[in-house]
Amino acid sequence: MFHLIDLIGTMAFAISGVLTAFHKRLDPFGVFIIAFVTAVGGGTLRDMLIGRTPVGWMRDVNYVYVIGLGYIIALLFRRKLDRLRTSLFLFDTIGLGVFTLIGLEKGIEVHLHPVICIALGTMTACFGGVIRDILCNEIPVIFRREIYATICIFGGVVFFALKYFQINNDLLYLITSLVIITIRLLAVKYKWYLPTLGKEVIS
Amino acid sequence: MFHLIDLIGTMAFAISGVLTAFHKRLDPFGVFIIAFVTAVGGGTLRDMLIGRTPVGWMRDVNYVYVIGLGYIIALLFRRKLDRLRTSLFLFDTIGLGVFTLIGLEKGIEVHLHPVICIALGTMTACFGGVIRDILCNEIPVIFRREIYATICIFGGVVFFALKYFQINNDLLYLITSLVIITIRLLAVKYKWYLPTLGKEVIS
Amino acid sequence: MFHLIDLIGTMAFAISGVLTAFHKRLDPFGVFIIAFVTAVGGGTLRDMLIGRTPVGWMRDVNYVYVIGLGYIIALLFRRKLDRLRTSLFLFDTIGLGVFTLIGLEKGIEVHLHPVICIALGTMTACFGGVIRDILCNEIPVIFRREIYATICIFGGVVFFALKYFQINNDLLYLITSLVIITIRLLAVKYKWYLPTLGKEVIS
Repeated sequence: MFHLIDLIGTMAFAISGVLTAFHKRLDPFGVFIIAFVTAVGGGTLRDMLIGRTPVGWMRDVNYVYVIGLGYIIALLFRRKLDRLRTSLFLFDTIGLGVFTLIGLEKGIEVHLHPVICIALGTMTACFGGVIRDILCNEIPVIFRREIYATICIFGGVVFFALKYFQINNDLLYLITSLVIITIRLLAVKYKWYLPTLGKEVIS
Repeated sequence: MFHLIDLIGTMAFAISGVLTAFHKRLDPFGVFIIAFVTAVGGGTLRDMLIGRTPVGWMRDVNYVYVIGLGYIIALLFRRKLDRLRTSLFLFDTIGLGVFTLIGLEKGIEVHLHPVICIALGTMTACFGGVIRDILCNEIPVIFRREIYATICIFGGVVFFALKYFQINNDLLYLITSLVIITIRLLAVKYKWYLPTLGKEVIS
Repeated sequence: MFHLIDLIGTMAFAISGVLTAFHKRLDPFGVFIIAFVTAVGGGTLRDMLIGRTPVGWMRDVNYVYVIGLGYIIALLFRRKLDRLRTSLFLFDTIGLGVFTLIGLEKGIEVHLHPVICIALGTMTACFGGVIRDILCNEIPVIFRREIYATICIFGGVVFFALKYFQINNDLLYLITSLVIITIRLLAVKYKWYLPTLGKEVIS
């Protein structure tokens, strides 16, 4: 079931990638690459950094298919997706929780320090968007005001705090992802943003 | 002979890198890095993704020499290269075919799925240009209208279709690279481009 | 002691990262990532290219702590750092020398060609700044006029020249880093820059 959620999250990320890329005057290939990178870029960077090669999507071609499916759906039903915005956002948020967990787990698998594992979880969940923004020639949005990454870091801290008390693994996963998902929903609802540093320069 | 074509293709890519970088107000070091990245960036990314490290150009210093040679030639004979534009374009196109083949082969060597091998072939041939454009602070040209990548993907499909019929290896390589080279030449001659998505937004 | 200088250099790079990022209208997370990438980006790229994974900072969490410390110091004492500009610049310059040496050593460890080792040394010392500039959506400053990278290359050549004469290792390290540090200081004092190519286009 975990793998299924992973694939659904991947597709949600790919769809959001297409929607982001659509107004950048790219061609179909460019939009596909942006969708691809948004979906698996974070995990790919993680795998390269810890030496888990060939990287994830190369070992399981289902990721490519799921991204291709998301790409086609997003291009065909682009206008209708507006009405599905809420479901999409929900999948995207679930993806955030699941991807963070996957990153944390990979770090633990290779016996890395908890601080590094939290970095890997955050990277898995958020750095696809960073690479997407770089390819689109923009300063990554999560470096400016999006609270995304901070939530993943917090989720990682909760994860290790719970793990310290030797909580059952299923419960550990469930609570951590629920914490991330809930805070993300609250953050969007109540418009929580990180402050911008160095503002005084402008005025 | 394959290795020789590889080195010639690398030099052609390096020269085209210098010519692209020349008007970006870079210093000699910057132009060299752009040439280097244009020439071996795609293969380097491929090697990192599949875990073939140290990456290619680190194991065979001839790549560095060939790029250095291309760099010097391009800087010295920059104006005269205009007259050699056709030969340069030809080498560049041969490079496209050969690099795609090399990427396909590396993927097969580590037993990856054909879809992934095609991705690796395309990456080897085209992503040096992507990294070059990112370093030059531009949205990669192959994401906008260049048909480059699509031709490599098509070449990869032809490759596996032929392989399925257990064609002799030499013939397989020859036909695949000829297909890529021919379509590329036709694409330039008849100005085939991919359409830009999301255009309606502008008007 | 070498490790200590490495950590001090890392912190100096992190502080300079914060100061660079501060006026880009980033949030605290974004500034931290820029500091992080400035400090360890070069070594991380080197490790990925030679397959030394998990990469350096993942194996020794002290790097993360030192960067965190530099980040906090830089944010708290930003205005006062102006008065410490000279010390900071000195640490930064020492970092340049030490990082180059570390890169050279890693290359030798995996038996790479001297030319490749010099590339690795330069990358270790200078490419954190390249990644920082890409994330900030700018053409890397060392590609435009900064003489940074050229000094590291020269230092690498001196290193192998001395090594050829089988000089004692401690002396080899000391001379190489002193050469890099001295030239860097002279370059700043006398405003040595690399010329920009392709200038005639503008006028």
